[in-house]
Amino acid sequence: MKKNEFNVTRTPFPQSEKIYVDGTIHNIKVPMRQIMLSDTLAEDDEVIKNHPVTVYDTSGPYTDPNISIDLLKGLDLIKEGWRYQHEHLELEDIPTALQSKIFKREKALRAKKGSFITQRYYAEQGIITPEMEYVAIRENCLADQDTQNNGQHPGQDFGANIPEKVTPEFVRQEIAEGRAIIPSNINHPEMEPMIIGRNFRVKINANIGNSALGSSIDEEVEKAVWAFRWGADTIMDLSTGENIHETREWIIRNSPVPVGTVPLYQALEKVKGDVEKLSWDIFKQTLIEQAQQGVSYFTIHAGLRWSHIPFTVKRKTGIVSRGGAIMAKWCMLHHQESFLYTHFDEICQLMADYDVAISLGDGLRPGSIYDANDRAQFKELETLGELTKIAEKHHLQVIIEGPGHVPLHKVKENMDKQLDHCFEAPFYTLGPITTDVSPGYDHITSAIGAANIGWYGTAMLCYVTPKEHLGLPDKNDVKEGVITYKIAAHVADLAKGIPGAQIRDNAMSAARFEFRWKDQFALALDPETAMKYHDASLPDEGHKTAHFCSMCGEHFCSMKASKELKNKASQVEEHKEEFKKNGQEIYVNA
Amino acid sequence: MKKNEFNVTRTPFPQSEKIYVDGTIHNIKVPMRQIMLSDTLAEDDEVIKNHPVTVYDTSGPYTDPNISIDLLKGLDLIKEGWRYQHEHLELEDIPTALQSKIFKREKALRAKKGSFITQRYYAEQGIITPEMEYVAIRENCLADQDTQNNGQHPGQDFGANIPEKVTPEFVRQEIAEGRAIIPSNINHPEMEPMIIGRNFRVKINANIGNSALGSSIDEEVEKAVWAFRWGADTIMDLSTGENIHETREWIIRNSPVPVGTVPLYQALEKVKGDVEKLSWDIFKQTLIEQAQQGVSYFTIHAGLRWSHIPFTVKRKTGIVSRGGAIMAKWCMLHHQESFLYTHFDEICQLMADYDVAISLGDGLRPGSIYDANDRAQFKELETLGELTKIAEKHHLQVIIEGPGHVPLHKVKENMDKQLDHCFEAPFYTLGPITTDVSPGYDHITSAIGAANIGWYGTAMLCYVTPKEHLGLPDKNDVKEGVITYKIAAHVADLAKGIPGAQIRDNAMSAARFEFRWKDQFALALDPETAMKYHDASLPDEGHKTAHFCSMCGEHFCSMKASKELKNKASQVEEHKEEFKKNGQEIYVNA
Repeated sequence: MKKNEFNVTRTPFPQSEKIYVDGTIHNIKVPMRQIMLSDTLAEDDEVIKNHPVTVYDTSGPYTDPNISIDLLKGLDLIKEGWRYQHEHLELEDIPTALQSKIFKREKALRAKKGSFITQRYYAEQGIITPEMEYVAIRENCLADQDTQNNGQHPGQDFGANIPEKVTPEFVRQEIAEGRAIIPSNINHPEMEPMIIGRNFRVKINANIGNSALGSSIDEEVEKAVWAFRWGADTIMDLSTGENIHETREWIIRNSPVPVGTVPLYQALEKVKGDVEKLSWDIFKQTLIEQAQQGVSYFTIHAGLRWSHIPFTVKRKTGIVSRGGAIMAKWCMLHHQESFLYTHFDEICQLMADYDVAISLGDGLRPGSIYDANDRAQFKELETLGELTKIAEKHHLQVIIEGPGHVPLHKVKENMDKQLDHCFEAPFYTLGPITTDVSPGYDHITSAIGAANIGWYGTAMLCYVTPKEHLGLPDKNDVKEGVITYKIAAHVADLAKGIPGAQIRDNAMSAARFEFRWKDQFALALDPETAMKYHDASLPDEGHKTAHFCSMCGEHFCSMKASKELKNKASQVEEHKEEFKKNGQEIYVNA
Repeated sequence: MKKNEFNVTRTPFPQSEKIYVDGTIHNIKVPMRQIMLSDTLAEDDEVIKNHPVTVYDTSGPYTDPNISIDLLKGLDLIKEGWRYQHEHLELEDIPTALQSKIFKREKALRAKKGSFITQRYYAEQGIITPEMEYVAIRENCLADQDTQNNGQHPGQDFGANIPEKVTPEFVRQEIAEGRAIIPSNINHPEMEPMIIGRNFRVKINANIGNSALGSSIDEEVEKAVWAFRWGADTIMDLSTGENIHETREWIIRNSPVPVGTVPLYQALEKVKGDVEKLSWDIFKQTLIEQAQQGVSYFTIHAGLRWSHIPFTVKRKTGIVSRGGAIMAKWCMLHHQESFLYTHFDEICQLMADYDVAISLGDGLRPGSIYDANDRAQFKELETLGELTKIAEKHHLQVIIEGPGHVPLHKVKENMDKQLDHCFEAPFYTLGPITTDVSPGYDHITSAIGAANIGWYGTAMLCYVTPKEHLGLPDKNDVKEGVITYKIAAHVADLAKGIPGAQIRDNAMSAARFEFRWKDQFALALDPETAMKYHDASLPDEGHKTAHFCSMCGEHFCSMKASKELKNKASQVEEHKEEFKKNGQEIYVNA
């Protein structure tokens, strides 16, 4: 792979600047995107300045024109200067075959024997780490802004405990209690920390990765950068087939967001797809390999027990989780309990040494509306609760994976049961998809479920692309999936009442009412598409300031009429008495 | 416009046949689409036949290859033979200038003075009309099917009263009580009746129509046929600009679904866009003109009263309904109460003469999250309740329009208040859009709101296309909007528990589990897109029977693994005692 083969998008967003907010406790710089708005021209030619809107930004250094990026070297090691665990860390050798020649990595960090170095451990000790301050500043990007005339609707948060302003201390408490995690492998120093928890902004994950039939490394790196750009808070590299290790190295070294994986996929590649040959030892070696690379969370399907399998026999779609299906097959072939379950304690110990968070996979999630909320699913969820308690002993950060395919009226039960069984560990759901009848549109069928479950309290939403059930997503599908899930997450944030969430909506609405078209594009989750659609019928530059659009045309523009009206409407108030005298009954209902 | 300029899509859907179910009370034939499925090949080479799935079909005669269609003649007059109101009807002249030369219409039907001919009037008299039997058969298309192994989740219907099976008598009662309507102008005999009500399947409307800046007649007819094809239960012709009358004539004569309009738009064209010159007389003439043509429902913004206008002054986006903005401007210019309100009784009387249903427009719906659920909006809703009672006296069929832009947690309040104030008249909402920040994706932001409000009880959802807030939708946008709203409506049907709604989902899930790819495409709301996405990575014909797809590849296909497993899982049950003896704890949680 030559350097010039890369073609990652680095164009900054329109009217936007990358800003950095300094920490007050630690020497950290938290990036945000500031969207500059044009002035409001009031009736009397008064010019009113509009505050810029600062938004949460996952695009990393790629959108900062002042930072030079060489994909062959990887991103700057922003976390390197923060290391506060020195005395608890040691360097271990990476096996020669697994050392990256390109990125020159021969050693990896690991906790010394007997030392704990997870964010959760520090939180439990009352220590505010740089990561914690970082995410606190990051979460506040909107709440800190001028909220004059914000007028946000109070949310309905179903018993969550969303603060007016996120403090580092609040972050620490949430992590200590196991209600939030900062996935942040000590071997991924390129990463900008982020937090996943019910009392914070809803996050989204984008799955990338090639399959045996699919794409190449450079395509995957490009897909990753593309996913960051549009808003992925984390990515999961679900590569199968060849070059899994190398693909992942490239992705991690160039990723400003935490990278998750399902280590079982690589373990299975190591035994050439022969499930019977999978073993605890192969799996364990895979965990170490990936932890050394810098993967920040592992999906491990340890909750699928041998005894759960018969509950799936009467299902319409059996087991649809890849990891779940592999482990179920292994149990059946060996007539044994899953080695992920029997070795769970060791798994936790090992992961804690690198601060890799565990995402307890739902191997028995329903793959159809028919199978939703069944015994298999909820039995496994109970087991995930059991495992959550075990992980806690190792000070491991834990999240719980959720469905899947669920009809809308059964979505809430998933959230309620998860809170019940899993001690408020953050919930991380795939959709859920709310109907099976629309392949090609499952980003939409699932965004409906995702917005709802996010509102109910799910902390992170795993995106679904239009290609779900049909094929491997390409770059366009990744964007469509990410934007759709940014919508679902933001809709949930508004409904939960995340402070300041509505500021961007309000700025958009004001720009609409004042026909500031370019501001509308700049404030849009996807400025390119918004502008393209507008220009499809009115391409002239002059129409970007026109007081109408092609939808209704000039005479029928309600915004135009209403704007004219606004200045006159107070007349009604002024003439109230006069009208009453004339016997006009306009105030009957007022 | 020459005949061969038309290029409307008439291709039948894959694996589908148009079937017709006969009435038992009346001489009617109700069209449905039957999707034929291939056989299941069981483990032991046993061949199991799969029942065809019969689905509700809005595509009209366009998808029946046995019917010849000439757009210059219009569709067959299927309702003509049903006329049971003969003695109450008379022919009135259509003014010469408004007669269609192409369709040779010189006269229109109208109720004789003193006669009532609305579906509601007949329902109140205890009479089951052909329209009522027609919609009863149509609604049952799924509930009537073999529901063996249907296993539908019970719904949560928020106090609606959804029957196990829709009978003509149930339809009659719902219409008599004002809880449902069959929009069915006596001058639209080409129409296939459909019902709108909380206890029936959720319906969707697609807006078409050119604007002064936009498209031509043939484009609009094509858009209409395209909208029927993908699932529009009604269309609204919102044309402005030139040729409004002619465009509408073409659309109605070729429409198998009810056509709605906002007559105020044409009235405004008649005064060349000068709001001040609008008058009751011009409006009244417009109502008659459109009623004679066969429009089945009129949106009339009679609930926006002069006294409500001051409540909009502090809004972020003022008045965003075009009709609302026009009437507010008229009130302000004339210092008078809206003529739609003061003449409401006459409006009802006139509409009842043709059985045009009234859709009470929400001129004060919020145009931003900020303005949601405010005083202006709910004051108008109360007035709509008042007007509902007046319309009832005229035996007029009534629906109530709803928002708009509403954050997710405030959606339900809209439904609750509508039920409270408007005597359970069917609710017909635009979305609602649940966040303002994503122009270009407002079909998705609104599908989230639409699925939820449909679940809560909204009877019809007005679609939103990706071009909303940006420009006039083209044919692709119409399809994207319609499919997205079919999803929202179906998700709501599943959640409400419409009997049989899940049969299509189950058939899809079974086809997935058995790798019947072609059946999956045929069962999809959009077979073309599903197939296109599948073929993007695996185009060979052989891959349409492959036991995997490009998403995970062959070795990682969970469906494949799970299917193999299903046949073996009973072993666990069989060997239960043996395992126990060996001290294996697999049954601890079972």
